[in-house]
Amino acid sequence: MSDLKNSLFLKALRGEPTERTPIWVMRQAGRYLPEYMQVREKISFNDLCRTPEAACEVTLQPVRRFGFDAAIMFSDILTPLEAMGAPFDFSQGGPKLERPLRDEKDIRALRRYPSLEGVPYVAEAIGLMKQGLGDRTPLIGFAGSPFTLATYLIEGGGSKDYAYLKTMLYSRPELLQELLDKLGDQILDYLRMQVDAGVDAVQLFDTWGGILHPADYRTMVLPVVRRIMDGLKDSGVPRIYFLKGSAPYNHLIKDLDVEAFGVDWTQDLSLAIDQMGGKAVQGNLDPLCLYGDREQIRRRALEICAKGAAASGHVFNLGHGILPKTPISAVETLVETVQGYRKE
Amino acid sequence: MSDLKNSLFLKALRGEPTERTPIWVMRQAGRYLPEYMQVREKISFNDLCRTPEAACEVTLQPVRRFGFDAAIMFSDILTPLEAMGAPFDFSQGGPKLERPLRDEKDIRALRRYPSLEGVPYVAEAIGLMKQGLGDRTPLIGFAGSPFTLATYLIEGGGSKDYAYLKTMLYSRPELLQELLDKLGDQILDYLRMQVDAGVDAVQLFDTWGGILHPADYRTMVLPVVRRIMDGLKDSGVPRIYFLKGSAPYNHLIKDLDVEAFGVDWTQDLSLAIDQMGGKAVQGNLDPLCLYGDREQIRRRALEICAKGAAASGHVFNLGHGILPKTPISAVETLVETVQGYRKE
Repeated sequence: MSDLKNSLFLKALRGEPTERTPIWVMRQAGRYLPEYMQVREKISFNDLCRTPEAACEVTLQPVRRFGFDAAIMFSDILTPLEAMGAPFDFSQGGPKLERPLRDEKDIRALRRYPSLEGVPYVAEAIGLMKQGLGDRTPLIGFAGSPFTLATYLIEGGGSKDYAYLKTMLYSRPELLQELLDKLGDQILDYLRMQVDAGVDAVQLFDTWGGILHPADYRTMVLPVVRRIMDGLKDSGVPRIYFLKGSAPYNHLIKDLDVEAFGVDWTQDLSLAIDQMGGKAVQGNLDPLCLYGDREQIRRRALEICAKGAAASGHVFNLGHGILPKTPISAVETLVETVQGYRKE
Repeated sequence: MSDLKNSLFLKALRGEPTERTPIWVMRQAGRYLPEYMQVREKISFNDLCRTPEAACEVTLQPVRRFGFDAAIMFSDILTPLEAMGAPFDFSQGGPKLERPLRDEKDIRALRRYPSLEGVPYVAEAIGLMKQGLGDRTPLIGFAGSPFTLATYLIEGGGSKDYAYLKTMLYSRPELLQELLDKLGDQILDYLRMQVDAGVDAVQLFDTWGGILHPADYRTMVLPVVRRIMDGLKDSGVPRIYFLKGSAPYNHLIKDLDVEAFGVDWTQDLSLAIDQMGGKAVQGNLDPLCLYGDREQIRRRALEICAKGAAASGHVFNLGHGILPKTPISAVETLVETVQGYRKE
């Protein structure tokens, strides 16, 4: 067994005892880091996602600086959509799709593609990242869930109320289903490609799954998440499902065949562990807590560590992505606190 | 007993059997109504809130058009803040506060005032509304919860991540507590004034309570909500607490001394009824469902009626305010469906 298999992160995901709690944070390769901003002075966000050397560099940065226990490949959840015929423009702040998908013609025009042909730079970047990380730090691959990707495709970007997606849901649910199924096939391919390229774990980000009634979540979203996760089972890498705002759906997702659930900050971690029993958990600290004082960060991080200790496995993380204005010192306090915590 | 006491709405809130399910919708006096837009051509939003005759007219409009089973006084949750020294400007789309509250000086400068002096037009409007509604349709008074009001005061308007409020929570929680307590006193006064002026029920809107960890919700938000609700108990009017995104907190709010809970659309109503047993419930239909087709509206409304029948009382409503682009025909379908539903 290589050292990597015995890394704290992978052991925690497998539900094996660890001497301390591993930590990484979502969007850890990001704008709060001065060294990331330096790279971004020379290259656009979109090009960074498509340039293996640069993507590798920013992936390694937070691991070097903070000693995080896992790296996550630098990319964007919208990256795989470009080769489907839906290129997003990131140059004006939020992502923008020039021609949002609104009817069957738009949806049927989306192309399925072999991942290695459509996004060759992702596999290449993973290769470089694995080389750079060596045997010490596992690399996480990821994708957006079909539903979350569908919100961007249908709305044409971010949205406040998801009016177009909801109109489709409430008038042509079969059309939305067709889109979700198509995205599901592509995303499963895309994640399999990442595993083949060397990632040690995968996370499916369902940022916007929480905007639905649980009955719609159950019929529209959950089956395609299940299909992706089941399709990755024989890959042997741990699978993490992060549904932001999952509290109303925990009773529905608990039976997914995954190794771990991400938990946002609006839930009590002990309750979430009870509701999704038998799986590892990851997350729970409000990203904005890192805008607070040192004492609050320490106290809240320790509370989460203590509650997480009751799960079969616990990976420390924020409840959502780290924010651009987060002070470096707050991250230092967090990492030091979590890595210093020992179960009683 | 006047007819009003026997109205479907008040009976449902008291948990008494009703021959059919009463319905009203949040923000029913609003921009989706052409007759409301006609009034707004002549008067700004802010002036409309402060002009009893006009506020009365738009309050009655949806009752006249759709035959809703309750009216809600036209006003804004930010209305009572002006007399505290925090006037919001509504002229640029969302509400804007010129000088957001950021430190103790700002918070201590907020004035407490006797409601009848600070907002005389609200009591006056309620008098006109009661006259206009007569003995047939009950009138709901309302206020924003201290926490939700605090988000607007500290952020200076709407917000995506509530960075200023959260920074205060995570660095100076005692200061946030001071603000919440001050707002709590004022809001209790404000709601008591509404009851004295004649409203038949009150609803406390906690639109943004759902952005917190449950432990913070429990220590910071819940006590002041409890104080307001307890303070209104001897007024004799039913009290409704609407916490948007309440699912992670249902186990905390269930013991509040209120007659009913509002339920947003991200929760299964049967589960919410189980979690908050013994109280009446109100809400649950996604406002965006009204952008869908007639069949979906009917099917989903009937599902909610059937699930609601298991509660001690059920008032049909949306899970949040009705949206400006909602077609009139969709509201007609909804009202007809709900008012035509009969329990088995």
